[in-house]
Amino acid sequence: VPYEFDEDTAVEEIAPGHFRGTINDRWNVGTVPNGGYVLAVGMAALKQSLPQPDPITVTAHYLSPAVPGDVEIDVDLLKTGRRFCTATASMRQNDREIVRLLATYGDLTKMEGPTHIAALPPQVPAADAPGRQRTAPFHVEVRHRFALGLAEPVEAGKAALERGWIRFADGRPMDVHCLGLIADAFPPAVFNVTERGWVPTLELTVHFRARPRSDTLHCAFRTRFLVGGLLEEDGEIWDETGTLVAQSRQLATAPRLRP
Amino acid sequence: VPYEFDEDTAVEEIAPGHFRGTINDRWNVGTVPNGGYVLAVGMAALKQSLPQPDPITVTAHYLSPAVPGDVEIDVDLLKTGRRFCTATASMRQNDREIVRLLATYGDLTKMEGPTHIAALPPQVPAADAPGRQRTAPFHVEVRHRFALGLAEPVEAGKAALERGWIRFADGRPMDVHCLGLIADAFPPAVFNVTERGWVPTLELTVHFRARPRSDTLHCAFRTRFLVGGLLEEDGEIWDETGTLVAQSRQLATAPRLRP
Repeated sequence: VPYEFDEDTAVEEIAPGHFRGTINDRWNVGTVPNGGYVLAVGMAALKQSLPQPDPITVTAHYLSPAVPGDVEIDVDLLKTGRRFCTATASMRQNDREIVRLLATYGDLTKMEGPTHIAALPPQVPAADAPGRQRTAPFHVEVRHRFALGLAEPVEAGKAALERGWIRFADGRPMDVHCLGLIADAFPPAVFNVTERGWVPTLELTVHFRARPRSDTLHCAFRTRFLVGGLLEEDGEIWDETGTLVAQSRQLATAPRLRP
Repeated sequence: VPYEFDEDTAVEEIAPGHFRGTINDRWNVGTVPNGGYVLAVGMAALKQSLPQPDPITVTAHYLSPAVPGDVEIDVDLLKTGRRFCTATASMRQNDREIVRLLATYGDLTKMEGPTHIAALPPQVPAADAPGRQRTAPFHVEVRHRFALGLAEPVEAGKAALERGWIRFADGRPMDVHCLGLIADAFPPAVFNVTERGWVPTLELTVHFRARPRSDTLHCAFRTRFLVGGLLEEDGEIWDETGTLVAQSRQLATAPRLRP
């Protein structure tokens, strides 16, 4: 039996650069598929199309909410270089573009050069501790796809910060291709300072910095600027060896109760 | 006499969605035009093409170094919604794509919703103080386009942090369309912990959060993760009223001495 992530991000190339897949409803937030999951489906088409093995930086603009069901993906290769290649992916449902991706891939095992790190991994609960759970005002099916251990808030009601560990509920090993999903898999940090609700992502950018070497990841997500109904959420994703594997930033609209 | 920024980002629509402009060498770093300046030329074509007045989030992937000279820009409108519209811009020189932009525009004066800010503007020198100057191992023509007052480093040689004020040298008023350029206009923060050199940007994403209400801006740029020759630089750009006007993040390769 394949793992849920692999089953639900499988895409088939039916013509050169043209893919078909299915958006499964088991990654839903309310009635809308999670944006990180939709990104992962698009990245599955990029992975099959590009000559380099690892995503390096991927940006998604969300044009219309996805719906569970068929999706078509067109990949357009813009540049193939010695170190990096760049492509777009256009995801369509019902003759409407729902997501546009702009992605640069490379080989994370071949990066060479100086290293200077001015940060520490986040403090998270022990991986066998249950952690704090969050409630939502509607059904969040995607939470059943993960095991999640949230840290207690530093300043309840004051800091839009969420830290914790995460791994796949069905034991799927972690790899670099999952990190776009992980970047959108936590409860929004802004829930610590606002009403809870649906937080539609306008844009999500993920920098992939290393292949993860553990199946449990340690994450911190923080919102510092919620202004006029728009918010940024910055993420750091580390593996258990203490290596930063991804940084993310998204721009989203403030929580609301639809859907 | 037009201001330098307006003269050097002027583009002409020669067919629907097809623009021509010129990359001027007075924004060069060594022999290569500054990435933020090239972004601003592409954004000039987006501004003319889109029905919404303000950039909200723009991502640029740099495929090949720009060269001074003619540039062609093709804009493709992906979605026009009530609040947001999304488009791509493809910039070409000598039959080669040099930059691909993915951009969502909206109206920053019509944003409504909750506000929660957990940050303060950076400490910068007084606007009439000369500030610290940096030297570079090659000619940096773009520095003459700005007046810049850099703060003293917090921990010299330890923190990849650069703070200061900036404005156009020729007195051009600041507006939201300049902020992509400002996001790439400071000396790279990583120079405080590495050799100086050329820091080619792979990808730059800017979130535009408010229209600036002052012509001098207060900025902070920080690199926390330089790993294996790849680095991120995070920027905050504030106006003198204490409003965050933009956040930026770029992925770049470590300093080297070419060109």
